[in-house]
Amino acid sequence: MKPPLTGIIPPLVTPLRDRNELDVPGLERLIQRLLDGGVSGLFILGTTGEGPSLSYALRRELIERICRCVAGRVPVLVCITDTAFVESVNLARHAAEVGAHAVVAAPPYYLPSGQPELQEYLSHLIPELPLPLLLYNNPALTKVPIGLETIQRSLAERRIVGLKDSSADIAYFRAVAGMVTQRPDWTLLVGPEDLLSDAVFAGGHGGVCGGANLFPKLYVRLAEAARAGNAERARALQAQVRRVGASIYRLGKHPSSLIKGIKCALACLGICDDFMAEPFHRFRQEERARVERSLGELTAEIDALAL
Amino acid sequence: MKPPLTGIIPPLVTPLRDRNELDVPGLERLIQRLLDGGVSGLFILGTTGEGPSLSYALRRELIERICRCVAGRVPVLVCITDTAFVESVNLARHAAEVGAHAVVAAPPYYLPSGQPELQEYLSHLIPELPLPLLLYNNPALTKVPIGLETIQRSLAERRIVGLKDSSADIAYFRAVAGMVTQRPDWTLLVGPEDLLSDAVFAGGHGGVCGGANLFPKLYVRLAEAARAGNAERARALQAQVRRVGASIYRLGKHPSSLIKGIKCALACLGICDDFMAEPFHRFRQEERARVERSLGELTAEIDALAL
Amino acid sequence: MKPPLTGIIPPLVTPLRDRNELDVPGLERLIQRLLDGGVSGLFILGTTGEGPSLSYALRRELIERICRCVAGRVPVLVCITDTAFVESVNLARHAAEVGAHAVVAAPPYYLPSGQPELQEYLSHLIPELPLPLLLYNNPALTKVPIGLETIQRSLAERRIVGLKDSSADIAYFRAVAGMVTQRPDWTLLVGPEDLLSDAVFAGGHGGVCGGANLFPKLYVRLAEAARAGNAERARALQAQVRRVGASIYRLGKHPSSLIKGIKCALACLGICDDFMAEPFHRFRQEERARVERSLGELTAEIDALAL
Amino acid sequence: MKPPLTGIIPPLVTPLRDRNELDVPGLERLIQRLLDGGVSGLFILGTTGEGPSLSYALRRELIERICRCVAGRVPVLVCITDTAFVESVNLARHAAEVGAHAVVAAPPYYLPSGQPELQEYLSHLIPELPLPLLLYNNPALTKVPIGLETIQRSLAERRIVGLKDSSADIAYFRAVAGMVTQRPDWTLLVGPEDLLSDAVFAGGHGGVCGGANLFPKLYVRLAEAARAGNAERARALQAQVRRVGASIYRLGKHPSSLIKGIKCALACLGICDDFMAEPFHRFRQEERARVERSLGELTAEIDALAL
Repeated sequence: MKPPLTGIIPPLVTPLRDRNELDVPGLERLIQRLLDGGVSGLFILGTTGEGPSLSYALRRELIERICRCVAGRVPVLVCITDTAFVESVNLARHAAEVGAHAVVAAPPYYLPSGQPELQEYLSHLIPELPLPLLLYNNPALTKVPIGLETIQRSLAERRIVGLKDSSADIAYFRAVAGMVTQRPDWTLLVGPEDLLSDAVFAGGHGGVCGGANLFPKLYVRLAEAARAGNAERARALQAQVRRVGASIYRLGKHPSSLIKGIKCALACLGICDDFMAEPFHRFRQEERARVERSLGELTAEIDALAL
Repeated sequence: MKPPLTGIIPPLVTPLRDRNELDVPGLERLIQRLLDGGVSGLFILGTTGEGPSLSYALRRELIERICRCVAGRVPVLVCITDTAFVESVNLARHAAEVGAHAVVAAPPYYLPSGQPELQEYLSHLIPELPLPLLLYNNPALTKVPIGLETIQRSLAERRIVGLKDSSADIAYFRAVAGMVTQRPDWTLLVGPEDLLSDAVFAGGHGGVCGGANLFPKLYVRLAEAARAGNAERARALQAQVRRVGASIYRLGKHPSSLIKGIKCALACLGICDDFMAEPFHRFRQEERARVERSLGELTAEIDALAL
Repeated sequence: MKPPLTGIIPPLVTPLRDRNELDVPGLERLIQRLLDGGVSGLFILGTTGEGPSLSYALRRELIERICRCVAGRVPVLVCITDTAFVESVNLARHAAEVGAHAVVAAPPYYLPSGQPELQEYLSHLIPELPLPLLLYNNPALTKVPIGLETIQRSLAERRIVGLKDSSADIAYFRAVAGMVTQRPDWTLLVGPEDLLSDAVFAGGHGGVCGGANLFPKLYVRLAEAARAGNAERARALQAQVRRVGASIYRLGKHPSSLIKGIKCALACLGICDDFMAEPFHRFRQEERARVERSLGELTAEIDALAL
Repeated sequence: MKPPLTGIIPPLVTPLRDRNELDVPGLERLIQRLLDGGVSGLFILGTTGEGPSLSYALRRELIERICRCVAGRVPVLVCITDTAFVESVNLARHAAEVGAHAVVAAPPYYLPSGQPELQEYLSHLIPELPLPLLLYNNPALTKVPIGLETIQRSLAERRIVGLKDSSADIAYFRAVAGMVTQRPDWTLLVGPEDLLSDAVFAGGHGGVCGGANLFPKLYVRLAEAARAGNAERARALQAQVRRVGASIYRLGKHPSSLIKGIKCALACLGICDDFMAEPFHRFRQEERARVERSLGELTAEIDALAL
C-alpha cells in the first residue's frame, strides 16, 4: 500500500459468542461485508472493538484470524494501547508475526502522564515496535491529550506514520493538518463520524467511523464527496450519518450504547452475534425492537441516496 | 484475622530494577520496615504500586514474593482492577493460590459504565473470585464512581467485605459509614491521607496511605489517635502528614509526582530502587536533592512527635 | 463583636412574594427564628439567598431591611460577589451605610481569571471597600479557586478578615487552617454542611450551613460539639444533618433542589413564602407533599437528640 | 434587514479609558473600521466586549452610543445575558428605546439550571422583551448548554429568531442546522472562529468572530468562500485565521488572553485604548512588543491573500 491511507477504516466490532470466545463465522461475514463496501483498511481492538475488555489470549487470536481472513486485501491496523508497556510491545510483536500492517497506540490510560512523560514514553516505545505506529488521540478516555508539541516531535520520527484523532476538536485537527504537510506519508484520520466531512475539508485523509460496520458505503461515499470538494453532496450524506447515530447509538443512557447499538443492528441483519464482554451487555428486547424498526427506515433512506 | 481490618494498610510501592524486573532485596527491606512500623496489612498492585503499568508476569511474581515474605503476619490485599474481566479473574486465582487474603477491584476503567452496568459486572465477578472482595472507589482515575445505590446492594453480598474510598469526598464516606452499620464485618478504608483523621472520625476503620511506605508509625499513630477520639493529638499528627505531602509529593508537575517522591525518598533512605515503569520515570538529580533535604527535616519533626 | 466569628452563620434564604418583591413578614419571622436558634451571624445574598438572581434594587432593599431587623444583635455579612467591579463596590457602600458588618466576595464568575489576575483584582477592590472583607471560595460556581498562594498574600492584608470555603475539599481547608494561625482575628468558615464537624476538627470556626435556615439549633449544637472535641456527639449530630439533606435537598434533579427544598420546608412550617426568582421556581405539589412528610420525621428525630 | 443575518457580526470589544469610562473616539474609529470591512452587524456586550465586567450605567451608555454611531447601517445585537431576570429585561428595554435590532441571551450563569428550568425561564422572558431574541449557547462559561430539545421548542416561538453557538461542538451545530430548516428566518451563527468554515459548510449563516475586530475583511471573505462552496479558498483563509489566533490570542496563560491580545493589537494600530475592566488588565510591555511584531507579519500575509 502507498501511504497515506485514505477513505474509511472502520473500527471493527469484535463478534463474540461468550466473554472469551469469538464468533468466528460472524467475524468472517462482517469482514467480507466491509471489504465489499469499499473500506480502505480495518482498525481492530479499539474502543468500538472492545479491545480493553478482552483477554490477551483472545486479542491474539482475533488479530491472527483477521489477518488471515483479510489476506492482504486491505491494511490491518492493530490497537496496542495498554497501561503496561510490556503488554503493548508483546501485542505489537504478535501483530507483526501474523501479518498486520501497523499498530496504533494512545497514551497509557490509568494514571495520567504529562506531555514530557508521554514524549519519553513514545521514545522508549518506538524502538521496541516491529511495525510503524499511528498515534491515537482520545483524551476523553485516556485523560491525556496528544498535544501539538508532541505531534510536532512525532513528525520528526520516521516510525510514526499518522494520527487517529477522536478528540472531536476540529480546531486541533486543522492545526495538525497544517503541520502534517511536512510529512506527505502521514495518515490523518478522524474518529467521531459526525465530523467526517469537516475533517476531510480541513485536510484529513479519512475516518475511523463506527457506523461503517453497518453501512460501509455511506461512509465511503461521504469521504469521497468531501475529498472531491463537493460540499452539497457531503452535507446530504453527513446528515444521513447523523440520522444513523440518532436512531442507533443513543438508545441506552450510558456511553456503551453506541457499541451496543451497532452490535445489535449487526445481529438484526444476521451478520454476527451481539454478545458483549463485561462490563457491558447486549441490548434487551425493547431496545432491539427499536433498532430493528430503525434499520428498516435507515436502509430505505440510504438506498434513496443512490450511493 | 478478625474483620474489620483497622489501622494502616499501606499501598505498597513496587521496587523495580527495570521495567520488567523486581528489586527483590529492596522489596524485602520495605516489607520488613512496614511490619516493624505496625501496619495492619499490605495493599499491593494499586495506583501507588504502579499495578497497571506492570506486565502480568511481573504482577504474578510480585504477589507470590510478597505473600511468601509476609508469611501470614498481616493480611495481603491484591488489587485486581482491570479493563478485562478474564484477566481480573486470572489474577485473583493466582493470588488465592499463593496465599493472599483478599482482592480489591475498582470498576473497569476504559469506557465508563453506568451504575446498573457496574452492578451487573459485580454480580458476574463475585462467583468467579476465590477470595473475598473489597470495592475500590476512585472516580478520578476510573471515571466511574461506586454510587451509594451500588454500595447498598453490595452490603447484601457476603463475598463483598469492604470498601477503599479514594474519592476525597468525606460526605460520601460518611454516608457509606452510616450504611455499613448493617455489616459489622465490613472494612471501610480511606485513600487520601490528608483525610485520614476525618475518615476515622466519620466511622472509617483506617487508611491506605501512600506516605506510610516512608513513615509507617506516623500514620499508624494518627489512625489510633482518631479512633480514640483524641481530636487534639489527631490534629497535630494530621498536620505532620500534610507536611510530608507538601515536601515530598509535589516536586513535579504531573500526578505521578506523588509516586516519584515516595520512591525517591525510599531510595535516599537506602530501602529500595526508585526505577519506575513506563510511562513514568524516576526523579532527576535536582528533585532528588530536594527530597533528600526534606527527608532530614521531616525525620526530625516526626521524631519530635514522640510516636 | 470580637473576631473571629464562631458558630453558625446561616446563608439566609430570601423570602419573596414575586420576582422583584420581598416577603417582608416572612423575612422577619425567619430572622427571629434563627436568632432564637442561637446563630452567630447572618450571611445574606449568597447562593442560597438567590443573590445573583435578584435585581440590584431588591438587593439594596433586602440589605437594609435585614440590618434594621437584626439591629446589631449579630453581625450581618453581605455577599457582594459580582462580575462587575463597580457594582460590587456600589453594593458594599450601601451595605456599610445601612449597618452591615462585613462583606464577602468570591472571584468574578464569568470569564475565569488566573491567580495573578485574582490577586490584582483583590488589590484593586480592597481600597474601595468601606467594610472588612471575607473571601469566598466556591470554584464549582465561580470556576476560579482561591489558591493557597492567594490565601497566603491575603493574610498580609489587614482588611481581609476571613474565608468562607465551599470547595468541599477538606485537605484545602486544613491547609488554610494551618496558615491562619498567623492571623488570630481571621474567621474560617465552611460551606457544605456535610463537612461541618470535619472542618471544625480541622481548625475552622464554624459553618455557613443552608439547613440552619430550618433547624438552627441542630447546626449550632453540632458546631459546639466539634469545638469541644466531642467526637461521639459530633458524629451523631452530623448523621442527623445528613438525614436532613437526604430528605429535603435532593427531591429534584437540578442543583437548585437544595434551595427549593429549604424554601418549601419553610413554607410548610408557615415561616415564609417559597417563591423563587427566575430561572428557578418553587416545588410543585408532589415534592411539597414529600417535604411535608419528611419535616415531621426530621422534627421528631431532632427532638429526640435533646439539643 | 431581511432575515436571516448572514456573514460576519463581530463581537465588538469595548474601548475603555478607565473602569467606568468609555474611549468614545476609539469606539467610533473601531465601528467605522468594521463597517468599512464589510461586516453584517455588530454583537455588543458579549464575552469579548467584557459585558459582564461593566457597570449597568456604562452598559446603557455603550448601547446608546453604538446605536447612534451605527445609525441603522447594520443591525446591532445586544447581549442581555444576566444572572438577574429583572436586569436582563431592563437592559433589553433600554436597547429597544435607543434603536437596537435584537437581543441575545445565554442562560443565567451562576447556579446552573436544568433544561426544563431553562425552558420555563425562556417562556417567562420572551413576553417581557421588546425585541426579538437570539439564543446564546456557551456552556463552558454558563455551565448550562442549550440542549437540542430546548432548541426544538424555541423553533415554535416566533420571537426567538436565532442562535449563536459557542460550544465548539460541530456535531451539535449540524444538528441545529438540520432543525432550523423549519424556520427560514432563523439566523444560525458560530462563535469560535476556528470553526467558521466548518459551521458555514454545515449550514450556518455566519460567525461572531473576535478576530474580525482586527481584520474584518479576512473573516468576511472566509464566510463568503464557505457559503459559495469554495472548499479550497476556504481552507486557505481558515488557515490564515488560525495564524491570527496563534500569534495574538495565546500570549498569556489565562482565558482572558484572547481579549487582551485583540485590544492590544487595536491599540498598536492606533484604533482604541486597551484598558480592560477588572478582573483583567492590559498586556504589559513584553507581550505588547510581541503583538506588534506579529501584526506586521499578519498584515503582510493577509495582504498577500488579495481579499
